[in-house]
Amino acid sequence: MCEKKEAPGKGAMFACGEQSMKFPTPVFIRSSAAVVGKKEGEGPLGGLFDLVGEDDLFGCNTWEEAESSLQRDALHLALKKAGMNSTDLRCLFAGDLLGQSIATSFGLAQYERPVMGLYGACSASGLALSLGAMAICGGFADCVGCVTSSHFASAEKEFRFPLGYGNQRPLSATWTVTASGAFILTGDPGKGARGIITGITPGKIVDFGLKDSMNMGACMAPAAADSIAAHLADFGRRPEDYDRIITGDLGKVGQRALLDLLLEKEIDISRQHMDCGIEIYDGEKQDTHAGGSGCGCSAAVLSAYVLKKVEEGSWRRILFVPTGALLSKTSFNEGKNVPGIAHCVVIEHVGGRQDAFH
Amino acid sequence: MCEKKEAPGKGAMFACGEQSMKFPTPVFIRSSAAVVGKKEGEGPLGGLFDLVGEDDLFGCNTWEEAESSLQRDALHLALKKAGMNSTDLRCLFAGDLLGQSIATSFGLAQYERPVMGLYGACSASGLALSLGAMAICGGFADCVGCVTSSHFASAEKEFRFPLGYGNQRPLSATWTVTASGAFILTGDPGKGARGIITGITPGKIVDFGLKDSMNMGACMAPAAADSIAAHLADFGRRPEDYDRIITGDLGKVGQRALLDLLLEKEIDISRQHMDCGIEIYDGEKQDTHAGGSGCGCSAAVLSAYVLKKVEEGSWRRILFVPTGALLSKTSFNEGKNVPGIAHCVVIEHVGGRQDAFH
Repeated sequence: MCEKKEAPGKGAMFACGEQSMKFPTPVFIRSSAAVVGKKEGEGPLGGLFDLVGEDDLFGCNTWEEAESSLQRDALHLALKKAGMNSTDLRCLFAGDLLGQSIATSFGLAQYERPVMGLYGACSASGLALSLGAMAICGGFADCVGCVTSSHFASAEKEFRFPLGYGNQRPLSATWTVTASGAFILTGDPGKGARGIITGITPGKIVDFGLKDSMNMGACMAPAAADSIAAHLADFGRRPEDYDRIITGDLGKVGQRALLDLLLEKEIDISRQHMDCGIEIYDGEKQDTHAGGSGCGCSAAVLSAYVLKKVEEGSWRRILFVPTGALLSKTSFNEGKNVPGIAHCVVIEHVGGRQDAFH
Repeated sequence: MCEKKEAPGKGAMFACGEQSMKFPTPVFIRSSAAVVGKKEGEGPLGGLFDLVGEDDLFGCNTWEEAESSLQRDALHLALKKAGMNSTDLRCLFAGDLLGQSIATSFGLAQYERPVMGLYGACSASGLALSLGAMAICGGFADCVGCVTSSHFASAEKEFRFPLGYGNQRPLSATWTVTASGAFILTGDPGKGARGIITGITPGKIVDFGLKDSMNMGACMAPAAADSIAAHLADFGRRPEDYDRIITGDLGKVGQRALLDLLLEKEIDISRQHMDCGIEIYDGEKQDTHAGGSGCGCSAAVLSAYVLKKVEEGSWRRILFVPTGALLSKTSFNEGKNVPGIAHCVVIEHVGGRQDAFH
């Protein structure tokens, strides 16, 4: 459980338990925006997104350029909502799924702000919020932007087969979400904020020996279980202390594995658990099999749906746990396992029970 | 120029100028290690590295596994030198050049510590040190590890052609260094430290419209010039305030471009400039053309050579500026430019003139 050390300036006062950090001053999610593709716009959350594309090329020539434009538009909208300019951002924390993170490089260059490039597969939104919150809380920045994206077509090309092959997909496969979510973090609430980040539990790489890139949910569930269990132990909390525990993109197969793995540790999150990948599509009607995935999935659902609930106070405290599958086409073809990673971020209602500050 | 704000806890006290951060408490580089391949061991700095491989597979089955083993060994040696165990690390900041950063995922999993995955191309060592230093200085961690790697054979396969093709390379091309460098950062000097990180200037993505992946030096030089100029302005310093200004892997072509670009801004760093990529090989004898490159290049030269000079006090303050070229095989084949990024890290002699603290 967390213990604050006594002497300020000496040692890691804000380290918490084995692998967590607890923020002594509020980090506000000042604004956010989600831009999604056509299919996501047709899903159950369609009406909540800020911008829905008419087709998945968004007026660009390639899928990769389209993904870059998603990031650009999401950050633009988030800045606009906060009444800010790009010059207000000290830096950006950003990433995507593509090799060498090209969606980010070509999406954010025109903002002309320092870029901290991240790679955490589909967990990148949690990584970006974690590092962004550390920059704000540590006094290194007044304002930062956190941006992640994924795109169905660029991801299929990157990890599996070009779309033109028309290959079939097993029911355990997830559908990469075409979306980008952008978040503006500040140390000052301004005229209002969507939520407060009060702590994080960065995740370890967890390898259960699974190799099936068409069943990412199962590959990532052990990492989610590991991070959630570590988080609850570090903060001395129970699942009931959260209104929701929200994974990124485990889908239906991964959700079952997560609940089972945690039950083995005598942790029951069945009443709190929600998965962004399950929420974003109507699996039956939209033929998306196990659910949505991608680092745009968790970011877009966080911005459009989860933060709406937190902002209005329906949910007072949630644990956001985006999960990533650590593979590449090369590692897959060389017969390597698909390890997972999951980063936990605690988000609370502004003016809510932020006992992290007591 | 830097101004400290008055009220503690209010606002970004440690933000500095337009895009920099200045650390109010020391971040010690407690130990470091560099593991390199055979060719690097035969170069001018060969005798300084901690471990030199007998061949470039390091006993592994694939180039990618070999690169993972470099990271594993470098971190192991750095921990050993610091007299620490992996459990002392709150988290790792790490990255490499490969798609989806697989060298990192498979190299560091066994340490069972939280991993903040980074992508900054060949600038990743600067990014890892920057974010690691923020975690220490912000009070979020007592001790973190920063690890980056590159491997000639895995990088050629990733970015250009499989080695078996035996393709020719122009003289402007650089040779990707087979190496990993690992650094242990702490807030406590212990029995001694190799240097102190006193400030950072994270870099913007700079796109001069160049497209030649066989001339990375020219692609990255504008970013290095941009970050160095921003750094000097933010900190109110001149080149003479540094014993060396050390880029990562511009090579001979990029070095000339950097010096010229800075002269256009009336900044002359010709007396301070050094490039890790030029130092690591004997270009004439080793047929490495413009020099070495890769995020193992700057990390290994920093650990083996630069920190030796800083530790013994021959150099009292240096600016470490690793540079990255932001491309992938996909972006290159789609005709995109090759933008660059460069992250500046100020490293000072322990007990030296750390005026950052006054």
